Amino acid sequence: MNKTPIKLSDGRQLTYYDTAAGGRRELADGRTLSAVNSTSELRCDPFLGAWVIYATHRQDRSYLPAAAECPLCPSRDGHRTEIPAADYEVVVFENRFPALTASPAAELANQSGQRRGLFTARPSAGSCEVVCYTSDHRESFAQLSHDRVSLVLEALIDRTAELAARPGVEQVYCFENRGREIGVTQPHPHGQIYAYPFVTPRTERVLASVHSYFRRTRRNLFDDVLAAERADGSRLVLAAQHWTAFVPHAAHWPYEIHCYPNRRVPDLASLSPDERHELADVQLDLLGRFSRLFPEPAPYIAAWHQAPVRRGRRHFALHLELFTVRRTSDKLKYLAGSESGMAAFASDVIPEAAARRLRELAR
Amino acid sequence: MNKTPIKLSDGRQLTYYDTAAGGRRELADGRTLSAVNSTSELRCDPFLGAWVIYATHRQDRSYLPAAAECPLCPSRDGHRTEIPAADYEVVVFENRFPALTASPAAELANQSGQRRGLFTARPSAGSCEVVCYTSDHRESFAQLSHDRVSLVLEALIDRTAELAARPGVEQVYCFENRGREIGVTQPHPHGQIYAYPFVTPRTERVLASVHSYFRRTRRNLFDDVLAAERADGSRLVLAAQHWTAFVPHAAHWPYEIHCYPNRRVPDLASLSPDERHELADVQLDLLGRFSRLFPEPAPYIAAWHQAPVRRGRRHFALHLELFTVRRTSDKLKYLAGSESGMAAFASDVIPEAAARRLRELAR
Repeated sequence: MNKTPIKLSDGRQLTYYDTAAGGRRELADGRTLSAVNSTSELRCDPFLGAWVIYATHRQDRSYLPAAAECPLCPSRDGHRTEIPAADYEVVVFENRFPALTASPAAELANQSGQRRGLFTARPSAGSCEVVCYTSDHRESFAQLSHDRVSLVLEALIDRTAELAARPGVEQVYCFENRGREIGVTQPHPHGQIYAYPFVTPRTERVLASVHSYFRRTRRNLFDDVLAAERADGSRLVLAAQHWTAFVPHAAHWPYEIHCYPNRRVPDLASLSPDERHELADVQLDLLGRFSRLFPEPAPYIAAWHQAPVRRGRRHFALHLELFTVRRTSDKLKYLAGSESGMAAFASDVIPEAAARRLRELAR
Repeated sequence: MNKTPIKLSDGRQLTYYDTAAGGRRELADGRTLSAVNSTSELRCDPFLGAWVIYATHRQDRSYLPAAAECPLCPSRDGHRTEIPAADYEVVVFENRFPALTASPAAELANQSGQRRGLFTARPSAGSCEVVCYTSDHRESFAQLSHDRVSLVLEALIDRTAELAARPGVEQVYCFENRGREIGVTQPHPHGQIYAYPFVTPRTERVLASVHSYFRRTRRNLFDDVLAAERADGSRLVLAAQHWTAFVPHAAHWPYEIHCYPNRRVPDLASLSPDERHELADVQLDLLGRFSRLFPEPAPYIAAWHQAPVRRGRRHFALHLELFTVRRTSDKLKYLAGSESGMAAFASDVIPEAAARRLRELAR
């Protein structure tokens, strides 16, 4: 893997990732962008114990631009984009309208937050990055080559390491939102990386369950769930040499797949070369099934759950959670009163039936 | 309030609520509906400690029917609906496609769930009801009369009492989803009541925070947050004699209002006559502001948080949470990778700015 870091004209970092050395990439951003005054603030909800991110500069970000105006395509004469080069393989850059921004180190010193009575707030830390998978505007992740998926994985691992080393970063989250139905504002195939200045509410909850299970049984909950799913079999989607994918017994979404390496590791960087190699096949296989579920490709969220940077690493198991918000070919699963108001999910699709359907869609 | 309970032809319960006695309502359902084989199952997610509801018979429920086919309008010649009467004020009936159903008492005996290793499942209990606010298909809650809002409130209180008394019911939740953007399948103005056979994940989390705060301070978190918001004032939307509405300091949604009675009570039934009377004004005021926020009425979720039926009642504070998923006149707030994947919310709107805007929209 060859890595070429450059600076965009407003000071943001961009990195080209190429399979071979020597493919020299454009270093200069031909645009003159004014610096964006990015500030974000964190506030803690005292009832949910959850940090909420406020980033008011984001209201003006571009929203479903026409293909000719795509800011993630390579630059060409008359259309300079976020990527200065005329072509690229994989490129990662800082979002111009990030939800999370890095604050000066002095502001971060008080990590516990400024308390004004019950109102806890603190300056933000962290970063939001965009990962372009291909220069081809019309491709999708499911259509990438095996080598390209491997290159994306190496880019995610490289970015995770750099972001995790930054002061104040507590968790690095690599994910892809795909489809207008879930609010994707840029149709160009891309993922995102959020470096959070806190352990996310979901991961906090999972770690609490894992620790409580360990205290009770001296066993690891991730290991036991994976073993139980493999033994039961009724919800398995695929069982490869190094990876297992299944619909969880209590799936929250109509079609939801959890994909684990058979050997528990805390993060992507800890995967062996063999595990990485097979992962590319597995990802293409699973996303291919999602694209065949309905007449049109399913909108999805693909979420890499990695261990937090500083704690819970010994017990956490890296895994991918993949789900679609579509429940039939023409109906979406909305998060309405029960889900959004009470976090009580109701699903129309029994997990065993979802798994059966996903098994049938193998190629 | 006058109450007329009847049975629909498939055995479901329907209740007419009228302001005056004597307005005799149609007792017979002229249709011949086959009984729906409603079964639902609960499964517990071992990582999130949350029950998920599966109700597979729901896939066929009607989805955005044409106005002439509306099942919530009064019956007329040639169009028999869910409501046999030719007119009504408020009517509540069991959903024909409920997410939650009552299981036989014998099945409920084992409330702790059948464990198959890590896979905990149990038969469901509970109920899903529909609350029609008006026979006028084109009205909205914000357009109801004060008397009608009061009648809706009395209906919710009556239904909450009946549902809370059923075996296996742990929490009764009254809410309204409004707007196609959040998945409302019936545009006729209506709310819903879910009687859950568990304390919802959100309420569990809130109770844990409230109990932990009490252990630390011997004080009530709801009381202290309400007092702090009233003292701060920058996020207040309205302060009436008996009710206070504010945008919470760490709001999760672009426009979110929490509305509390100034006297802490566990549920709607505990409100005094004066508090009930003023509540109707307050609800109409707040929903009126929501309807003026954007050129078109904002889609919203209005959620009544009542104390669980059997525990946490001493510390819980009844309140209404009202929020819209719209962030500007033409943009929605989607729950994508960060929110759906990690429960980490990012918002573009600072709560103080949202409150200022909502104060300006007073009539």
